[in-house]
Amino acid sequence: MKISFSLFKLILISLFTTLCNTAYAEVVLPAPNGIKYPAGLKNWRVISTSYRKDNDTQRAILGNSIAINAARSGQTIPWPKGSILAKLVWKNTQHPQWEAAIVPGEFVHSEIMIKDSKKYPTTKGWGYARWTGTAQEPYGKDDTFSGECLTCHTHAIDSDYVFTIPATIP
Amino acid sequence: MKISFSLFKLILISLFTTLCNTAYAEVVLPAPNGIKYPAGLKNWRVISTSYRKDNDTQRAILGNSIAINAARSGQTIPWPKGSILAKLVWKNTQHPQWEAAIVPGEFVHSEIMIKDSKKYPTTKGWGYARWTGTAQEPYGKDDTFSGECLTCHTHAIDSDYVFTIPATIP
Repeated sequence: MKISFSLFKLILISLFTTLCNTAYAEVVLPAPNGIKYPAGLKNWRVISTSYRKDNDTQRAILGNSIAINAARSGQTIPWPKGSILAKLVWKNTQHPQWEAAIVPGEFVHSEIMIKDSKKYPTTKGWGYARWTGTAQEPYGKDDTFSGECLTCHTHAIDSDYVFTIPATIP
Repeated sequence: MKISFSLFKLILISLFTTLCNTAYAEVVLPAPNGIKYPAGLKNWRVISTSYRKDNDTQRAILGNSIAINAARSGQTIPWPKGSILAKLVWKNTQHPQWEAAIVPGEFVHSEIMIKDSKKYPTTKGWGYARWTGTAQEPYGKDDTFSGECLTCHTHAIDSDYVFTIPATIP
């Protein structure tokens, strides 16, 4: 198989990015339930976006490769083992040059949910974690914080406890 | 250098994804000004998100590697040659299980802007293109459509004609 120059470049960029982000992830502390901040999260691909009127935020929803493959093939009920969905959440703010456009302001938190029914039986098969602010401080005083996550996510019981509906991306 | 198994997996995924998306991109026709739909666009990394109250849409803003590097190092005035910013745009719709959450509904269009001052001098150094709907039909009857793009983007003259302010991603 002939590998084109741009493909070779992409591989090099992947390599470089992964190494950089592995280094970064080491300085973010794990959540109180032991879940670690995934290396390279900010390089993951997009599953969807959303904004919320109740807490005045907007977010990008990204996925690891298992989640992306599931989202793109419509295999999300249930999501496969190893899927990780990540939300990057910002406060809403008005765009300075286009008043009807609402864009990301202050960074609020990143949060993930990891599918593993054997590892997380008490929270319906998903492990939850959140890191607050640009300092990425682990959320929660002890490992009971996941109960808060589950309370909300139970609204999405029919879609395997996941609110995110993968957006149409042609 | 020792290459870990997950890194090797990432490289394989990049390879596979690039090949798949190259194949896909061949069926999307170029814009009337000759700009081609970038292969693998939907796998690009996130620069920001936004929603608009004037046309009831929300969007993910992605970038090619040149744009991502510029965004993450704060080198965006001007954006470097070769930067491509892409917008995936959806109609807003209410989440079925969380009424205050507004999520992507119908896919509206994807659009890109490519920085190349020598190639696109009549549109202030940026080449514009848009593909409409899930069929990704090229927008515009002839190559004068870029004038419409420029009219709006002139509001963002102070940020090199780019509305997108890279979101804080720790």
